[in-house]
Amino acid sequence: MKAFCFDVFGTVVDWRSGIAREAAAFFSRHGLSGVDPHEFADAWRNLYQPSMQACRSGKRPFTRLDTLHRENLEQVLQAYDIDPAKLGDGELAQLNKAWHRLDPWPDVVSGLGRLKRRHIIAPASNGNIALMVDMAKRAGLPWDAILGAEVTQAYKPSPPAYTRMVETLGLPAHQVCMVAAHNNDLHAARLCGLATAFVARKAEHGANQTTDLEPSEKWDIVARDFNDLADWRSTGSGNEIRNV
Amino acid sequence: MKAFCFDVFGTVVDWRSGIAREAAAFFSRHGLSGVDPHEFADAWRNLYQPSMQACRSGKRPFTRLDTLHRENLEQVLQAYDIDPAKLGDGELAQLNKAWHRLDPWPDVVSGLGRLKRRHIIAPASNGNIALMVDMAKRAGLPWDAILGAEVTQAYKPSPPAYTRMVETLGLPAHQVCMVAAHNNDLHAARLCGLATAFVARKAEHGANQTTDLEPSEKWDIVARDFNDLADWRSTGSGNEIRNV
Repeated sequence: MKAFCFDVFGTVVDWRSGIAREAAAFFSRHGLSGVDPHEFADAWRNLYQPSMQACRSGKRPFTRLDTLHRENLEQVLQAYDIDPAKLGDGELAQLNKAWHRLDPWPDVVSGLGRLKRRHIIAPASNGNIALMVDMAKRAGLPWDAILGAEVTQAYKPSPPAYTRMVETLGLPAHQVCMVAAHNNDLHAARLCGLATAFVARKAEHGANQTTDLEPSEKWDIVARDFNDLADWRSTGSGNEIRNV
Repeated sequence: MKAFCFDVFGTVVDWRSGIAREAAAFFSRHGLSGVDPHEFADAWRNLYQPSMQACRSGKRPFTRLDTLHRENLEQVLQAYDIDPAKLGDGELAQLNKAWHRLDPWPDVVSGLGRLKRRHIIAPASNGNIALMVDMAKRAGLPWDAILGAEVTQAYKPSPPAYTRMVETLGLPAHQVCMVAAHNNDLHAARLCGLATAFVARKAEHGANQTTDLEPSEKWDIVARDFNDLADWRSTGSGNEIRNV
């Protein structure tokens, strides 16, 4: 294994708490009460897949996630009967950048630092490059490169999102390991020949999460967290939930 | 200034010594005497601009530098009456990767490390992503992202190489500073609205270099080396050759 490529939203960072924190501050600043910030985060995120689907299907050309997030933000505000035009462009731009200011799960920085010593580590996210760079600098994520949708001009789980990334790395697909908390991401990566590592993030969607609690296939690696993933790399030894 | 984007071959790394070192070992291993390794490095590098020109002009689609380097290698070997087919694909691939194994100038790692604390730093090179990643991991170049030709799908000094990079960073052009040892690179960047920093590398082409010994225009910053560039960032104070 030469490179580890990471899903980011949910796998590396806790988007739900981060967006809720920023939304709560935003609503309080604008005197808007009665909106549950976690519910708002979920509603905003629910528009994520449909907005990318327009690009995947070819209905619209590839469009950076910052732009999709902004369109989705205006839509979700309207769903809450809040008129985005009244809030002002600067305020909306600032809230939209909440996605650039998400916190990593507690094991991420140390695990990535250890993996980086012997492997290429890069995000393979649907997030755009500026978003990933801002997030990394704020959180101390020591990426070797920013890969992902803006480089491949394709949104996961479309096959080119994986195949073009492998080509960009100049490696055989089996030497590139996709790391994700989402079984469907790993499924798509495996179909393109990549190795796969599952790290469950059982609180991504809050305390009552029902999805992606367990691996749905026999992934090459199943790790408890990023430190466990780094342990696997340094010892090669398995633990009870590991399939390798 | 939010981001510093660096030319790499010549500005960050000493390509001539590195290629000569690898070529010397290669020729010795293959019992090929009578080739001056520095001359060979120059001859290989001389095919660099014409090969990119085919992509710039639209004669051929954008093609990664690793591929152009490999084509140029076969061409330069033939010019030396060496039959590349007799050397074997693996050996040629290995020599072609000499561009991934170049050493930085002595001030680079410390200067970049200091700049990175408060700024985004990224290569804005014609080199492809895999080349830049391999080089960075070997040399300890602490880039925040790998930008450049493969991301913009354009070779410097074509304007899209600069404008698309600025767009990718999500910043106004004047907050992005192009750093180069080559006046023509800075000239092209300035035409696209970027800030400019000149760092002379007077030994890039060996002891008798005649080009790019001095700034040819009043660049925003003229620095002796990358530590001097980092000093400028931390103190804002000028020195005698500085135009700001």
